[in-house]
Amino acid sequence: MKQHNIAILGASGYTGAELVRLIATHPGMTITALAADRKAGMAYGDVFPHLRHLDLPTLCRIEEIDFDAVDLVFCGLPHATSQLVIKALPDNVKVVDLSADFRLRDPAAYKKWYGNDHAALELQQTAVYGLTEVYRDQIRAARLVAGTGCNAITGLLPVLPLLRAGVIDPDEIIIDLATGVSGAGRSPKEGMLHSEVSEGFQAYAIASHRHLGEFDQEFSLAAGRPVTVSFTPHLLPQNRGILATIYVRGQAGDIHQTLVDQYQSEPFVTVLPFGQAPATRHVRGSNQCHIGVAADRRDGRAIVFSALDNLTKGSSGQAIQNANLMLGMPEETGLQLAPLFP
Amino acid sequence: MKQHNIAILGASGYTGAELVRLIATHPGMTITALAADRKAGMAYGDVFPHLRHLDLPTLCRIEEIDFDAVDLVFCGLPHATSQLVIKALPDNVKVVDLSADFRLRDPAAYKKWYGNDHAALELQQTAVYGLTEVYRDQIRAARLVAGTGCNAITGLLPVLPLLRAGVIDPDEIIIDLATGVSGAGRSPKEGMLHSEVSEGFQAYAIASHRHLGEFDQEFSLAAGRPVTVSFTPHLLPQNRGILATIYVRGQAGDIHQTLVDQYQSEPFVTVLPFGQAPATRHVRGSNQCHIGVAADRRDGRAIVFSALDNLTKGSSGQAIQNANLMLGMPEETGLQLAPLFP
Amino acid sequence: MKQHNIAILGASGYTGAELVRLIATHPGMTITALAADRKAGMAYGDVFPHLRHLDLPTLCRIEEIDFDAVDLVFCGLPHATSQLVIKALPDNVKVVDLSADFRLRDPAAYKKWYGNDHAALELQQTAVYGLTEVYRDQIRAARLVAGTGCNAITGLLPVLPLLRAGVIDPDEIIIDLATGVSGAGRSPKEGMLHSEVSEGFQAYAIASHRHLGEFDQEFSLAAGRPVTVSFTPHLLPQNRGILATIYVRGQAGDIHQTLVDQYQSEPFVTVLPFGQAPATRHVRGSNQCHIGVAADRRDGRAIVFSALDNLTKGSSGQAIQNANLMLGMPEETGLQLAPLFP
Amino acid sequence: MKQHNIAILGASGYTGAELVRLIATHPGMTITALAADRKAGMAYGDVFPHLRHLDLPTLCRIEEIDFDAVDLVFCGLPHATSQLVIKALPDNVKVVDLSADFRLRDPAAYKKWYGNDHAALELQQTAVYGLTEVYRDQIRAARLVAGTGCNAITGLLPVLPLLRAGVIDPDEIIIDLATGVSGAGRSPKEGMLHSEVSEGFQAYAIASHRHLGEFDQEFSLAAGRPVTVSFTPHLLPQNRGILATIYVRGQAGDIHQTLVDQYQSEPFVTVLPFGQAPATRHVRGSNQCHIGVAADRRDGRAIVFSALDNLTKGSSGQAIQNANLMLGMPEETGLQLAPLFP
Repeated sequence: MKQHNIAILGASGYTGAELVRLIATHPGMTITALAADRKAGMAYGDVFPHLRHLDLPTLCRIEEIDFDAVDLVFCGLPHATSQLVIKALPDNVKVVDLSADFRLRDPAAYKKWYGNDHAALELQQTAVYGLTEVYRDQIRAARLVAGTGCNAITGLLPVLPLLRAGVIDPDEIIIDLATGVSGAGRSPKEGMLHSEVSEGFQAYAIASHRHLGEFDQEFSLAAGRPVTVSFTPHLLPQNRGILATIYVRGQAGDIHQTLVDQYQSEPFVTVLPFGQAPATRHVRGSNQCHIGVAADRRDGRAIVFSALDNLTKGSSGQAIQNANLMLGMPEETGLQLAPLFP
Repeated sequence: MKQHNIAILGASGYTGAELVRLIATHPGMTITALAADRKAGMAYGDVFPHLRHLDLPTLCRIEEIDFDAVDLVFCGLPHATSQLVIKALPDNVKVVDLSADFRLRDPAAYKKWYGNDHAALELQQTAVYGLTEVYRDQIRAARLVAGTGCNAITGLLPVLPLLRAGVIDPDEIIIDLATGVSGAGRSPKEGMLHSEVSEGFQAYAIASHRHLGEFDQEFSLAAGRPVTVSFTPHLLPQNRGILATIYVRGQAGDIHQTLVDQYQSEPFVTVLPFGQAPATRHVRGSNQCHIGVAADRRDGRAIVFSALDNLTKGSSGQAIQNANLMLGMPEETGLQLAPLFP
Repeated sequence: MKQHNIAILGASGYTGAELVRLIATHPGMTITALAADRKAGMAYGDVFPHLRHLDLPTLCRIEEIDFDAVDLVFCGLPHATSQLVIKALPDNVKVVDLSADFRLRDPAAYKKWYGNDHAALELQQTAVYGLTEVYRDQIRAARLVAGTGCNAITGLLPVLPLLRAGVIDPDEIIIDLATGVSGAGRSPKEGMLHSEVSEGFQAYAIASHRHLGEFDQEFSLAAGRPVTVSFTPHLLPQNRGILATIYVRGQAGDIHQTLVDQYQSEPFVTVLPFGQAPATRHVRGSNQCHIGVAADRRDGRAIVFSALDNLTKGSSGQAIQNANLMLGMPEETGLQLAPLFP
Repeated sequence: MKQHNIAILGASGYTGAELVRLIATHPGMTITALAADRKAGMAYGDVFPHLRHLDLPTLCRIEEIDFDAVDLVFCGLPHATSQLVIKALPDNVKVVDLSADFRLRDPAAYKKWYGNDHAALELQQTAVYGLTEVYRDQIRAARLVAGTGCNAITGLLPVLPLLRAGVIDPDEIIIDLATGVSGAGRSPKEGMLHSEVSEGFQAYAIASHRHLGEFDQEFSLAAGRPVTVSFTPHLLPQNRGILATIYVRGQAGDIHQTLVDQYQSEPFVTVLPFGQAPATRHVRGSNQCHIGVAADRRDGRAIVFSALDNLTKGSSGQAIQNANLMLGMPEETGLQLAPLFP
C-alpha cells in the first residue's frame, strides 16, 4: 500500500501514544516526525516504554519538522495552542486536530465554552467536524478535520439519527455518562492519582462540561431547531472507556429500529439486539462503538446506551479513520484491531 | 454499657462479615452465635481471615443456637429462606432482617418482584421498613425490622423529603445509579470475576430491578399518590459504594433547602453545600450518606446526588442503627467509624 | 497470503478468546471451527461480546468438526482432557496444545505434578516444548507443540541463557513472581471475585506450583545438571501481566551482556538498558517480553526482571508464534500488535 | 478517659488524614490543632471530604498553634523540614515524628541515605525508634519517637526475632516487597496517576531504597554484627497494603515457632498457622500485622511473609500506638478497628 508520511504534534500525551500504537500496524502510514516541545530530544520509548520495540523518530520540536515531506499532521496539542500551530502549517499538509479548537463553527460558541477569542477564524470556517459516520463526504474532501470530544461522540452517535428521524422528543434528552481517567491526560493532577480515583465514583463538571457546546451544535443541526440537553459526566475508576446512558421519550422499538437501519453497514458502530446493554470492557482498545436500546417501564420512554473507548473511537482511532478518508485509503485501514478483553 | 447478646444468621456472606466488623468495636453488643449452615464447624477467621484477631464463636447451624440467651438476631439469609427461618424464631427475640422478605407490605407486590408467595404473611404485616431516618419511632417499638435494599435507600433518602415537601414533580423522576460489586455477594459468578468486572462499566436489570418495588411503595406513600420512577442501575469496577444521580423537575434551590432542613440534625446524613457532588470514596466503610444538589442548565430541572456504602449504610450499618433503637441504645452507638480513604 | 484453516478447541475460555482476538487481524489464518462443548450452539459474540463484530463460526462440539479441512488445531482444553482429545485427532492436523499435558517429557514428572497417569505417552515423546526462542527449529518441524506455562516462560526466558552461559550459580536461583488473575481462567471461583482480588496481594501455591516441573526440566537441561529453584507466585489485583523478580548470583554486568547478546535479534524479547525495570503495563496485550537486569548492593548478586502478558506471550500469542513456524509462515505474522497502554 | 490534646503538623497528607480518621474514635485524644501551611485557612472537610462529618479545627499555620495547650504533636512533614520544626517545639510537648528524620541514629547513615546533614543532631540522639514491639519500654519514657518507614516495619517485624534467636543465616536474607500507592503521598506525580498505576506492576528503587538504612541499623543491632540484606520493593496497583516475601536460610519449623513465641501476646501481630500466607486485603485499614511462614522445597530454606497497611500499622496507627504509651494510656486504645474487607 502507498505510504503516507505522518507527523504527530503533541506526541507525549496519551492520544499521541494511541496514534503511534495504531499506526504501528497501519499499512499505509509511516511516522516521519514526533513533536513534543518539552521532551524534544528524548527517545519515544523512554517516554512511552510500551512502544520501545518500535522504530520511531526521536522527539523533536515542531519547528524542526520539514513539512514538505509530510502528507498529514495529527495535532494533539492543548486547545488555544492548537489553532496557532495549525494556522502556521503550510497549505499542502492535511490536518486532523484532536483538540477542541475547530469543533465549534460559531466563534461566539467557541468563546463561550473555551473562554478565549479564536485566533484562526478563517480556518475555523473551513474545518469539518470529525464525526465520520455523519460527515464522511465532507471529511474526504477536507484539508482540516476537527476530532470530536470523546464524551461528545458517545452521545452523538446514538442520538443524532433519532433526532433526524423524529422518533424522540428533542426537549427531553438526558445524557448521563461515565468516563475512564485516561481522558484527563497524563499531566499530574491530584484528582487523577490512583489513590484518589480507584474505588471511587463521582460526577464532575455538572451542567457545565465543554462538550455541551458540541451537543448543542450537532443536535440543533440534526433537529432543525435548538436542542438543549441535560448532561452529567462521571469519573470511573478505570483507565479507558465511556458509557453513556441516555434517557429519551419515544417508542423504544422505533428507536431501536432507527438505529439498526442507520448503522447496519457501518464498520465501527454495532447496534446490539433490543434490550441488551453495551459495556466499556467490550470495546477497550478498539475503534468500535456499541449501542443498545431498552424500553423503560413507563410507556413512551426508552433508555439508549452507547459505549466506546475514549482514546480510540473517542479520539485517536477516530482521527485515523478520518485521515484514511482524507488520504484516499479505505476508511477501516489499520483500525481492525479487536478489543482487548479481559 | 449493658451488653446485648447477638446472633447472626447467614454469617458467611459479606453482610455477615460487615456486621461482625462493626460489632467488634460496638460497646453494647456481644456476638454469642454465628450461623452458616454450609460452613458450620469452621472457625470464623478461616472464612474471613481479616477478622481472625477477634474472639468469636465457631460457625454453627441455626438449630444449634439457644435463642433464649439471644436478645436480637441479624438475619442475612437469602430471601424466601429468610421468612421461613424468622417465622420459626421464638417471640422473645428481636429481629433485623437484611433480606428482601419483609420490605414490601403488599403481598401482591412481594410476589410480583420476587416470584414466590410469601410464607409468613402475618409477620409481614408487622414488619417495619428499616429506613431509620423515616421510621425511627416505629423501629424503636418493633420486633421485626426489614432492612432496605442498598440501592433503594440510596434513592429514598434524597427523594422522599422532596416528594413530601412537594418541591419536585412526582412524574418526572429518573434514578440513574452505579454500585460496587460487593452488593452481589460472595457466591462465585462469572460476571463478578475480577477479569470481568475491572476496567468495565455496564447497566444491568434495566427497568426491572427488584428494588423498584421499594421505590414504588415508599415514594407513593410519601407523595400520597402512585409514583413510578425510572431506574437504571450500573455495575462499577470497585468493591464498595453506591452513587445515585437523580434527575428531577423543580427549583434546585428549593430542593437543596428542603434537604438541608430535613437532615440537619441527622447523625448519618450530610447534605453538601449547593453545587457539590458526593463521591463513593468519601463514605467507604462508614455509615454516612452524602447528598448533593446541583442546578441543571435548563431552568426548573435539578440533579440530586446521593452516595453511601452498600455494605454499611446500605445494609449492615443500617441494621445496627436499627438494632440500637430496638435495644434502647443511642442510635449512633458503634457506628462512629470514619470512612476509610484512600 | 495463503490462508490456513484453524480450529480452536476449548474456545470459551480466555485463551480461546485471545486466540480469536489475535487471529482476527492475522493475514494467514482463517478460523473454520470453534468448539466448546457446554456452549455448543451459541454465537461466539454471545460468549465474548467484545468479539461480536467478527464473522465467526457458531460454537460447536468437537465431534462436529471436519478435521480434513483443518490445517492446525489450537487446543485450549483442561489438562488430562487435552491428551485424550489430541490423541484422537487425525494425523494430518498439526496441533498446538495450550494445556499442561505435553510440557513435561518425563512421564513420572507429569504424574508427580499433575496426579494422573499420562494417557498418550507416545505422543508425549514427540511433542516439542513451545519455548520458541529455544526450540525454534524443532517447532518448525513438529506436528505437536506443547505451549509453556505462563509463569514458566516468564522465568525461563531470562534464566536459561544465563545457565547455558554459566554466568550464574545454578544452586542459588530464587524466582519471585506476580501474576494477573486472567491466568486463573473464566470459571467462577470465590477467590477470583473482584471483591476478593482487588486491593489485595498474596502468595499462593508456595513451593508447590505445577510450573516447577517445567523449571526443573528446562533449567536442568540448560545447565547439564539438576537445577532446583525456589519459586513463589503471587496473585496481583490486575487482569493481565506477569512480572518475575529473580535473585541470582553472578556479576550483573555479565548477566546483562549475556541477555543482550542472546536476544538482540529476537522479535519478541527486548532487554532493557542496564538498571531499568520492566513493567507489566508496558507489554499488555502484546507478544512482547521485557527483560531487565540490575546489580544488587551486594557484590556478586543481581536481580533479573522479566515481564510479559500471560494471555499473549504467555499463552495464545506464543501459540500463534509457534503455529506460524509450523505452517511455514514468518514467525512474527499477525503478532505485531503494540501493547495497550494505558 | 482523660483527654489529651493533640496537634497534627502536615495534616493535609494521607498520613495526616489517617491520624484524624483514627483519632475520631479514640477515647483519649482530642485534636486541638491541624496545621498545613499551604492550605491554612481551609476547612479540613474541604481537603478531605470523607472527614467532613467530624467537628475539627480549621487548618492553620504551625506558628498559630499554642503549644502550651498541646500534650503531643504528630509531625507528618517531609524529612529535612521535620527536624527543623521539631527542634523549635517547646520541651513540654511530646512528639511522634512520621518522617524519616529521626529514624537513623548514626548521622553519617542519615546523610548517606537522605543527602543532607542533620540539623538537629542532639535531638537525633535522644529519639527512640518507633518499633513498638521492640522498643516499648523506651517509647513509654520518650519525648521524641521516630515512626518507622512503612516498608521497614514490614520487614523488621518478622525478621528481627529470627536474627535475635539465631535461627536464620544473617548473610542470606532477601526481602522482596510490594506496596500500595498511598505510600507515595498525595502530591501529584505522573507515575502515581491512575492511568499509570492500575493494571501494572513494577519494581522501583532497586537496591537503593532509603528504608535500607533502617534495615541495616536494626538488623545489625539484633544480630550483634553487620547485616546487609537484599531488598527489592515493587509498586502494586492498589491503594493500601504492603506484603513482604522474605527468603531466608534456616529450618522453617524453628522459624515459625520463634515467631509464634515472640508474638503470642502482642495485640497487633498475628502469626498464621504454618504454611498459610497473609494477604494485604485482610489487614486493610487496621493496625494489624499478619505474618506467615512456609517451607521452601529445598531443605534449610524458608519463606516468611508479612502483611500490614502502610498508612495504619506502617505509619499513623503505629504513631498512635506509640503516642498511647507516651501519654500513659493502654497501648491498644483507639486502635481496635477491624480491617475493612472487601
